[in-house]
Amino acid sequence: MSRPKPMSGFPEFLPAERMVELHALRILSSTFELHGFASIETRAVEPMDQLARKGEIDKEIYVVRRLHAAEGDTDELGLHFDLTVPFARYVLEHAGHLVFPFRRYQVQKVWRGERPQEGRYREFLQADIDIVGQGTLADHHDVEIPLVALDAFEKLHVDLGIPPVVLHVNNRKLSEGFYRGLGIEDTAAVLQRVDKYDKIGPDAVAELLVTELGLETGQAAKCVALAGIATTDESFVDRVRELGVEHALLDQGLEALAAVVRVAERQVPGRMLADLKIARGLDYYTGTVYETVLQGAEKMGSVASGGRYDALASDGKNTFPGVGYSFGVTRLLAPILGRGELTASRSVPTCVLVAVDNEESREVALRTADRLRRRGIPTEVAPKADKFGKQIRYADRRGIPYVWFGAGENDEVKDIRSGEQVGADADAWTPPAEDLFPRTVRGPLG
Amino acid sequence: MSRPKPMSGFPEFLPAERMVELHALRILSSTFELHGFASIETRAVEPMDQLARKGEIDKEIYVVRRLHAAEGDTDELGLHFDLTVPFARYVLEHAGHLVFPFRRYQVQKVWRGERPQEGRYREFLQADIDIVGQGTLADHHDVEIPLVALDAFEKLHVDLGIPPVVLHVNNRKLSEGFYRGLGIEDTAAVLQRVDKYDKIGPDAVAELLVTELGLETGQAAKCVALAGIATTDESFVDRVRELGVEHALLDQGLEALAAVVRVAERQVPGRMLADLKIARGLDYYTGTVYETVLQGAEKMGSVASGGRYDALASDGKNTFPGVGYSFGVTRLLAPILGRGELTASRSVPTCVLVAVDNEESREVALRTADRLRRRGIPTEVAPKADKFGKQIRYADRRGIPYVWFGAGENDEVKDIRSGEQVGADADAWTPPAEDLFPRTVRGPLG
Repeated sequence: MSRPKPMSGFPEFLPAERMVELHALRILSSTFELHGFASIETRAVEPMDQLARKGEIDKEIYVVRRLHAAEGDTDELGLHFDLTVPFARYVLEHAGHLVFPFRRYQVQKVWRGERPQEGRYREFLQADIDIVGQGTLADHHDVEIPLVALDAFEKLHVDLGIPPVVLHVNNRKLSEGFYRGLGIEDTAAVLQRVDKYDKIGPDAVAELLVTELGLETGQAAKCVALAGIATTDESFVDRVRELGVEHALLDQGLEALAAVVRVAERQVPGRMLADLKIARGLDYYTGTVYETVLQGAEKMGSVASGGRYDALASDGKNTFPGVGYSFGVTRLLAPILGRGELTASRSVPTCVLVAVDNEESREVALRTADRLRRRGIPTEVAPKADKFGKQIRYADRRGIPYVWFGAGENDEVKDIRSGEQVGADADAWTPPAEDLFPRTVRGPLG
Repeated sequence: MSRPKPMSGFPEFLPAERMVELHALRILSSTFELHGFASIETRAVEPMDQLARKGEIDKEIYVVRRLHAAEGDTDELGLHFDLTVPFARYVLEHAGHLVFPFRRYQVQKVWRGERPQEGRYREFLQADIDIVGQGTLADHHDVEIPLVALDAFEKLHVDLGIPPVVLHVNNRKLSEGFYRGLGIEDTAAVLQRVDKYDKIGPDAVAELLVTELGLETGQAAKCVALAGIATTDESFVDRVRELGVEHALLDQGLEALAAVVRVAERQVPGRMLADLKIARGLDYYTGTVYETVLQGAEKMGSVASGGRYDALASDGKNTFPGVGYSFGVTRLLAPILGRGELTASRSVPTCVLVAVDNEESREVALRTADRLRRRGIPTEVAPKADKFGKQIRYADRRGIPYVWFGAGENDEVKDIRSGEQVGADADAWTPPAEDLFPRTVRGPLG
């Protein structure tokens, strides 16, 4: 096999990059668990008829079949393209064994057969949280979900140095009610155009609304004016009222969004923005919607998003409303790792390399290593009884901070960064906490 | 959507079962890291021509294509069926950025389009460790790998209650040299028949060797006699010698296997067995081979296996020999979880449920919950300001041990198992360590 080439759209990390990803995943999982979310995983494949239900996304599905499928083997399967469709199926399939409201998190790869381009992947990692009720789900979960998300992002900022975020929130009822109050019927078509606001600007959106949807200039102007409203407090309500549009659904949406912003303003000041242009294009949310942008990296677009579904799933008898949020882990990390802005303090977990005097004494080194490991210290034994200088270079090339010398008596340990070498007992010596495991550090370009 | 049916061969776990799996995965990953293995992940797909190289396995591959693949889009992809083929490709692709010997672990799903049957899955989780060298790789790694594996299994036994294991080891050179010493040319064909020893017994294997391969009765008897040798120490060498077969490759194999068993006997007495019938059928190992059986569950067959490759990968210029081992995580856990022998002490991570007096005071409860979480205590806020009896039932149904009452002053916490209720400060109260996170416990049928 000649040297293989990378496959476009399928990012893979080197060991030091993977350590940063693992660090981020530990932060996400532990935050989700602190908030009472239980982990589940679903299979990678779903029946094609279930995957293809979701409108325009069907062209991006990867179809899966057995190489030697039997005649009449009609099971059409596809790789899941998000974690929401499989979760909805999981809830229906296992409803009898779950207790509702059910809080779950799910960290898995998803696949989309897209044309690869900057920031688009064919395989990428998502980390989702959802709260789903049976029959009903209280409104206050719509503020709980972004509070969990902001807790996680705050830790990613403090521990990893990911930029802080602003979570943008809107409510579909607000937009839809506003459009209906203007006498517009096809509100979804308006939402799709408003979704381009950041890309093409307000004037171009207004023009699309007139030319493509046949709106009057005055209607289009009001839609664009609504989209331009963004406040960190409840003052957006007055600004919407000033536009003079009235509809019962608009009132519902205003009230619901105000309730979310009011709590967030007190709990996490400055982190949430009522942003009335957030539309979440083709996703079929029915109430609150979320998008999240990194401060200083707004051009990347939303790195995490979600919203409320009136019916995440339904089996005819029971309806399961839900509210959820999805972290685009690959979308967030791959560019940062690709630019080398973050890396690990070493490329191996190993904290101590036990040197080997000669091959006959390798078993002594094995036992020393085991004594260190039993106390939680990641340890390797040198692969070859080379000259000590060469064994130290083995450690140095991997960033292993300590090399251990001795045959279980009169042992010494050397910090190869400072050169300091001290007597040590494998049952007692402990490295400084910051050396025990690899840390995430700013890369050379950071 | 009506209630979906489980898909045969694609096991999915309920939240409490998933917690046991996560516990097992934490044990495996932390053990691998203690031994200096770095984590990597590879993409789920590989080019079909690479996957199909591995002989007879090709009929089990799942082919992947875009639903709306463009004309002339000839990229044939398949889901990986193990983690060795993708790892070999990863080593070649990234060799310039890796340091050798390279030690990696990899925990990912793999897919095989098999006919589902007891203990066979179409999607299952593997946890692999490999050490790979550039050009050469020292022999002592052949004993290091099973020592890491036995360290992990010992922790799975102590922490989770998985039965203890015996790791069976053989060497391909030993068998092949022995067969060549008997004048047999097609040694691979003999290995394939010997691989059935446990299933069909020695007499049936001897018959296959005679009828299918045309061996003389005496040759067949010696092959079966070799396969019957199993010792926990080096005494297997004498027993092989007694069979009176000679070949240089046999000598190499005997020496190599004796070296592995000698170290293991001293380091982990009673845990390793030189078992000369271990063949690893169609896998193309070239030296040491491993299989692992649970004591008392020998019928399950090997739950973890591996071996040495002279050339894990080669790009024409460089050859990369390796030795590795693969834990069949799903194969090990799914039957145990399916029988309910292990489960989690609760179905949610939550340790404390903060009760809500009335919806107006929900924000106070949110702040109490945050104070507990800031000290690492998994906490939920009750979803509804029901009567306290109902809120306690919410906790009880999920196995949440503590319910918190109060509005930030004169707070009290109740252990709902004992009924004991005491005054508590959200900035100071700490639950007993065994209540903090869900634990793995014997199930009702265990």
